[in-house]
Amino acid sequence: MATKPALIKVAALCGSLRKASFNRGLVRSAIQLTEESESLKGIEIEEIDISSLPMLNTDLEGADGMAFPPVVEDFRSKILVADSILFASPEYNFSVTAILKNAIDWASRPPNVWAGKAAAIVSAGGGLGGGLQHFHLRQIGVFLDLHFVNKPLFFVKAFQPPPKFDADGNLIDAESKELLKKVIEALHAHTLRIKGN
Amino acid sequence: MATKPALIKVAALCGSLRKASFNRGLVRSAIQLTEESESLKGIEIEEIDISSLPMLNTDLEGADGMAFPPVVEDFRSKILVADSILFASPEYNFSVTAILKNAIDWASRPPNVWAGKAAAIVSAGGGLGGGLQHFHLRQIGVFLDLHFVNKPLFFVKAFQPPPKFDADGNLIDAESKELLKKVIEALHAHTLRIKGN
Amino acid sequence: MATKPALIKVAALCGSLRKASFNRGLVRSAIQLTEESESLKGIEIEEIDISSLPMLNTDLEGADGMAFPPVVEDFRSKILVADSILFASPEYNFSVTAILKNAIDWASRPPNVWAGKAAAIVSAGGGLGGGLQHFHLRQIGVFLDLHFVNKPLFFVKAFQPPPKFDADGNLIDAESKELLKKVIEALHAHTLRIKGN
Amino acid sequence: MATKPALIKVAALCGSLRKASFNRGLVRSAIQLTEESESLKGIEIEEIDISSLPMLNTDLEGADGMAFPPVVEDFRSKILVADSILFASPEYNFSVTAILKNAIDWASRPPNVWAGKAAAIVSAGGGLGGGLQHFHLRQIGVFLDLHFVNKPLFFVKAFQPPPKFDADGNLIDAESKELLKKVIEALHAHTLRIKGN
Repeated sequence: MATKPALIKVAALCGSLRKASFNRGLVRSAIQLTEESESLKGIEIEEIDISSLPMLNTDLEGADGMAFPPVVEDFRSKILVADSILFASPEYNFSVTAILKNAIDWASRPPNVWAGKAAAIVSAGGGLGGGLQHFHLRQIGVFLDLHFVNKPLFFVKAFQPPPKFDADGNLIDAESKELLKKVIEALHAHTLRIKGN
Repeated sequence: MATKPALIKVAALCGSLRKASFNRGLVRSAIQLTEESESLKGIEIEEIDISSLPMLNTDLEGADGMAFPPVVEDFRSKILVADSILFASPEYNFSVTAILKNAIDWASRPPNVWAGKAAAIVSAGGGLGGGLQHFHLRQIGVFLDLHFVNKPLFFVKAFQPPPKFDADGNLIDAESKELLKKVIEALHAHTLRIKGN
Repeated sequence: MATKPALIKVAALCGSLRKASFNRGLVRSAIQLTEESESLKGIEIEEIDISSLPMLNTDLEGADGMAFPPVVEDFRSKILVADSILFASPEYNFSVTAILKNAIDWASRPPNVWAGKAAAIVSAGGGLGGGLQHFHLRQIGVFLDLHFVNKPLFFVKAFQPPPKFDADGNLIDAESKELLKKVIEALHAHTLRIKGN
Repeated sequence: MATKPALIKVAALCGSLRKASFNRGLVRSAIQLTEESESLKGIEIEEIDISSLPMLNTDLEGADGMAFPPVVEDFRSKILVADSILFASPEYNFSVTAILKNAIDWASRPPNVWAGKAAAIVSAGGGLGGGLQHFHLRQIGVFLDLHFVNKPLFFVKAFQPPPKFDADGNLIDAESKELLKKVIEALHAHTLRIKGN
């Protein structure tokens, strides 16, 4: 008798604190897609809040280097149990945002809880749609030992017609949703490969 | 009668919150060098504290997009009056630290107060001595419109013999100090060029 | 009596060998702009052919490390006398093309003839219009000691409407021409700054 | 009865044309390690010569875009049948060499024969040992759809004591050989994961 394949659990991180953030909208849209799409039945996405993490200061770690502030421990434990990661972040000044980098750095403190996981990046913004930061995040990921999905790339040019988001930051563009679905399918497949299933 | 050339004022930013940070040690050493060296008489370095800036959230800006929290306004005004910038920062996970990126992003909010300034980067750390983040910072600097000194590159491999720093994070290696002096001389010359003097 | 300011001489390099290359079209368009525009009277652009350089092999250099093949010497001498550089290149696989990198590497052999010059990058292509390679070229430029113009960035999305190039690779889009003109004006001003005039 | 696992075939590319190239020495050393080490019995490395490829010019492709020069076809077919790729290349001016980039670009022409393979990077050189180009190569690899091994990183600082290479470019440093062995083991494991075995 075949066993049901285990559900893949994805931790989604949004790199913006703005209420109506387009990138948080991407996370909501991704979650909705997993709930609606037949091809995404095997994958579950949960947004992990990173807004209340203190700015990283290794002096805040315990004397033995093993204890983190409780809010950090909580965040790290959520990353640890995830099968893979979805980064949804705006680009600030051609690179990753501080809010996202801070979360990344906390979870990389020994023992690095990112190690060996699959990951995907999506972004929305002006200019190149956040495309340049993807490659900074990928360089960071080498140290973290993350394995990124290569294709499809996903960066929404948020201010080019047709409208991509409504005033609350919800993704409303059908073509972008279709591409987002493909990213999640690719993350699903890549997660299974990287986990060796 | 020749007028005395104006003193070049450098704002130094340290990307670590650690008390005994090596990179804050680099800033102290740079300041000391400007006080002691004949060739650095025309340049003055001041460390700008970035440890109390809130995490950037554009929802914190005033409704008209022009008002920043007071601690941010204060920081921005110090960058605005500086002639050039000295970044001294560790590398976290092959990229810039969140504490530094956050300060960068606040000062880039319109009107961008970095625009048109000269800048230099120094770093100390393990591995490649922080050398990889230099190039992330340079990419960020294109958006900020900063003009970086190309040479000499300065990244101290902090954990390779001979000892580079004492327990308080003071730079004690003569060769590194000599190179740091050359960086400041190069920043001085580049600042004059970029300012068109 | 005021002396006439010296003419700024720009060496333009095209990173494609294709006959109808869009990027060679950008060079032609840039040259035409300098001939027609009042604001560009002080700057002259010449395309330097790089198509016949052999693939770099330091075994091809003379025993004393000083002699280069004649075609390489000729190329190097043209770079040496230029005041600044205009790179016009497609992006291949998210990075610079081999034809351009080969030329760059030859002219960097000691003595490095790029050192201390100003430079600008323009590109045309699919996807992000070649925008990602700009930052690879800028990292390369740190070693070469080139000083790049920061703004405006110029990457033409060649395949998005309205049409940007005709079948022979001539730039026909008025908006792109206007932006190209601004890049050349910025290169002119930056060259004067970097030369200390 | 268990079937014998298939041998993993690795195509190794050296990015230098120098006869006594350190990086070709790394390829030779890697091949020797696979022949000698019990833990590397399942993997086979072959160097693919890229020195006679013409400089890429898409005008050289047939009118239907499907035919390549014979030497290019030959090279592409060797990449196509490989299970994974080992890049061994010096760093020129903080980036990949033209000889390597040219080979990469030819094999990326449709149909892209790199797609979906695992890969690893090793390098030897001055300065940072070639460490900066690794990240340019990784960015290129996103377009190629290569999946790189994250750890261990391997860049030999060729000119730092103790001696790493003899006059013929053979790797003679035991510690570097041990690390190279770990890279090949990691490539082996990653290739199996990416192939879904």
